[in-house]
Amino acid sequence: MKTTKRRQFLKTGFVGSAGFFCSPFAAVTEDSQSQTDLFITFKTRRSVRKFKPTPVPDEHILQILEAAHYAPCPRNRQAWKFVVIKNRDILDQIRDECIKRGGEQSKQYFTDYMSAPVYVVVLADTQTRNPVNDATAGALAAENLMLAARALGYGSVFCVNSIPEDVTNKILNIPDNYKRVCITPIGIPDKWPETPPKKDLKEAIVYDRF
Amino acid sequence: MKTTKRRQFLKTGFVGSAGFFCSPFAAVTEDSQSQTDLFITFKTRRSVRKFKPTPVPDEHILQILEAAHYAPCPRNRQAWKFVVIKNRDILDQIRDECIKRGGEQSKQYFTDYMSAPVYVVVLADTQTRNPVNDATAGALAAENLMLAARALGYGSVFCVNSIPEDVTNKILNIPDNYKRVCITPIGIPDKWPETPPKKDLKEAIVYDRF
Repeated sequence: MKTTKRRQFLKTGFVGSAGFFCSPFAAVTEDSQSQTDLFITFKTRRSVRKFKPTPVPDEHILQILEAAHYAPCPRNRQAWKFVVIKNRDILDQIRDECIKRGGEQSKQYFTDYMSAPVYVVVLADTQTRNPVNDATAGALAAENLMLAARALGYGSVFCVNSIPEDVTNKILNIPDNYKRVCITPIGIPDKWPETPPKKDLKEAIVYDRF
Repeated sequence: MKTTKRRQFLKTGFVGSAGFFCSPFAAVTEDSQSQTDLFITFKTRRSVRKFKPTPVPDEHILQILEAAHYAPCPRNRQAWKFVVIKNRDILDQIRDECIKRGGEQSKQYFTDYMSAPVYVVVLADTQTRNPVNDATAGALAAENLMLAARALGYGSVFCVNSIPEDVTNKILNIPDNYKRVCITPIGIPDKWPETPPKKDLKEAIVYDRF
């Protein structure tokens, strides 16, 4: 947004060319470019299952986890844990155990799946007043994590079943009181997948009642 | 980011003053202001339970739902529905039924809770190959919805239990094959709540294994 337009916005709450941003609400930013970039993040997040080995800097990992940590949660319990795995030996143990179970034909799949330089296992405490809702909050945190990763240029995937929970429970010594929400790689994609075909948004919307 | 710096970035992938943004990855934006604004969105989303009556323009509602619609989901099923309620009579029916059940002392609570101009009920189809994962995907969609709302200046809350599922099932004629993920208001907050106290992020992180 050019300075003149920004001034115009601050004065009138309206910038004609910005289209969707035309109200003087307390939006996060009055900058239409920032707004656009944020919505591009939602649209360009992809589920990625093969990565380049390029390391992810620690400051990016912390920034991504901080975004996760700000997800909403019941009664502010923050009943989640983020297990950050960068140790290649541990990642190879997970990969090898998956291949052992999946058989020779699963080798390429799990080799690709476990090729990221860092994984985050999101856990939710089951010994709370409402473990179901705390697990859901863990999923909301994982969505923040994946969006933050995408914004910084990384791919991820919300993996629930492909890598069995008991495999990570055993290899990571996860205490019995935690349920795994997901295991999510973070890394530069081998390539960014195409956008999968989306249903028309209208098909997903019902107005007022069925 | 000033033009000179942006040019410097495009050339070298490094802008000293941006701090966290120092790699030439395919990030969503090379603009450090946009990056900062996105992370501000994560941090300033709040759970809001009282709203001004100011209407939310339809184009904002659609933009928010489009963000939700781009959430990850198992095998691209998009097994969610978004029931958008703007009809005040329907919202008042929900409020009155909640007050009827909660008693006179719940009146202010539900009057505030149902004061937003628009609500989105997120539903997940239970007649799929994996309804548990499809319900989780509905939660991820709801997180996108809440972040997009915040970016545009609106408050929301991930409401699961406060408004009973059978109340909305009945009033909205929701078919039996849908499970409610949440009901989420969207509106200008009566006031933005303070940031709740957060645990130190370090407490939530475990490195490599327990």
